[in-house]
Amino acid sequence: MTQKITIVENILSANDQIAQKNRALLDAAGVFAINIMASPGAGKTTFILKTLEALQGRLRLGVIEGDVASSIDAEKAAAAGIPAVQINTGGDCHLDAVMVANALPALPLTDLDLLIIENIGNLICPASFALGSHLNLLIASIPEGDDKPYKYPGMYRGVQALIINKIDLLPYVPFNMDYFRQGVEILNPGLVTFPVSAKTGEGMQAWADWLVERVQTWKQDLSR
Amino acid sequence: MTQKITIVENILSANDQIAQKNRALLDAAGVFAINIMASPGAGKTTFILKTLEALQGRLRLGVIEGDVASSIDAEKAAAAGIPAVQINTGGDCHLDAVMVANALPALPLTDLDLLIIENIGNLICPASFALGSHLNLLIASIPEGDDKPYKYPGMYRGVQALIINKIDLLPYVPFNMDYFRQGVEILNPGLVTFPVSAKTGEGMQAWADWLVERVQTWKQDLSR
Repeated sequence: MTQKITIVENILSANDQIAQKNRALLDAAGVFAINIMASPGAGKTTFILKTLEALQGRLRLGVIEGDVASSIDAEKAAAAGIPAVQINTGGDCHLDAVMVANALPALPLTDLDLLIIENIGNLICPASFALGSHLNLLIASIPEGDDKPYKYPGMYRGVQALIINKIDLLPYVPFNMDYFRQGVEILNPGLVTFPVSAKTGEGMQAWADWLVERVQTWKQDLSR
Repeated sequence: MTQKITIVENILSANDQIAQKNRALLDAAGVFAINIMASPGAGKTTFILKTLEALQGRLRLGVIEGDVASSIDAEKAAAAGIPAVQINTGGDCHLDAVMVANALPALPLTDLDLLIIENIGNLICPASFALGSHLNLLIASIPEGDDKPYKYPGMYRGVQALIINKIDLLPYVPFNMDYFRQGVEILNPGLVTFPVSAKTGEGMQAWADWLVERVQTWKQDLSR
C-alpha cells in the first residue's frame, strides 16, 4: 500500500516537472494558456468557439483540443480560422503535461497571445494533472444541477475561474443558484465567476473583457 | 511500454475475477443488478428515484450509490425507504468490483429482486470496470448534446440499454435526434433505447415495464 502511494506520487511529480517545462516554453513565447475543464456536455466547444469569436482582433489565438476519440472539435476550431491541434487520448480520461508538450511544437507559438486548451470532458481526473497553463477554468452548466460542487469538490477547488453556462435554461430546470454558489464558496472562496449562455451570447462580453485584461496584465508583468 | 500494458491487463483481469464472484453471489440470492452510468448531471439520481417509485410493489429494491465525495444521493434513496449503501471512492473516477464486493454484505440480498448500482458520474472510466451486474445502462441527456456517442464511443459500446433523459428540454437546446441515434447505431446496433423525462415522468412507465419483464424473465431462467 505504501509502495502504491509512492508510485502515484512519482507519476504526479513527473507530470508536474513537464508541466513546468511547458509553462517556461509558453512564457518564453509570451503565450498565456488556459486549461478548460468541464463535464461532458457542459458546452465547452460552443463556449470556446464563442470566446474565440469575441476575442478576434483583440488577441492572437490558438487551440489545443483534447478528446477521447474523434476530431469533431478541432475541425470546428479550424473552420473558424484558428490554428488548432487535436490530441486523441485513445481512451485516457484526462490530458497530461506530456500530451501538451508533444502538441505545442505544432502551433506557431511566437505568433500567439492566448492558447486555449480544451481538456477531456470529465469532472474528476483532469483536476489531478497540471498542464503548465496559467489559468485553470471550469465550465459548470445549469442542467447539470446545483449539487455538483458538493459531489466533485476536487475539481471546484483546483480552478481560478468558473463559468456557469446555459443560464438560458434556468426557467426550465430545477437549479438553486444560492445552494450552488454556497458550495463553490466553501471550496474556493472568492472564486471569480461568470454566468453566461454561450448559445445566446449573454454574459460572453464580460468574460471576454476580463480575459483580455488578464492576458494583457500578464504580458506587462512578463516584460518587466 | 510492454510491461505497462501487461500490468494494466492484470489489474483488469483481477477486477473481472471479483466481478464474477459478485455475479455468483447475486445469482445465488436471486438479485438482478443494474450498473447505471452517465455523465455528471445527466440526471442519474432523479432517474433512479423515479424508477424506484415506479417499481414499488412490483419488485423488492436495493441501491448502491457511488460518489467521489458526499452522501447526498444515498440520503435521498434512504428517504424513499429503500435499503441503500453509499460508496465514497475518495477521488476515484469509477466504481470497481472490489468496492461493490465490500458493499454487498451491507444489503439484505435475499430480500431483494433488483439492485440498482449508481456509478460515478463519468463517461470514460466506468466503462472499463465490470462490477458483476446483469445489465449495464447508460443515461444520456438532451442538454449534453447529440455528439456524445461519437466522442465517448467506449461507453456507448459497453451497455445493453440506453436512457435518453431530459426530453422535456428538446424545445430549448440544439439536439439532432437522428444524428445522435445514428452514432449509437454504429457503435451498438439495435441497442434498446428509452427516451424519458425523469422530471415530468414521460416515458418512465415504458422503461419500468420493460425492466420488470426483464427481471422476471431472468428469475424464471435462473430457477430452471
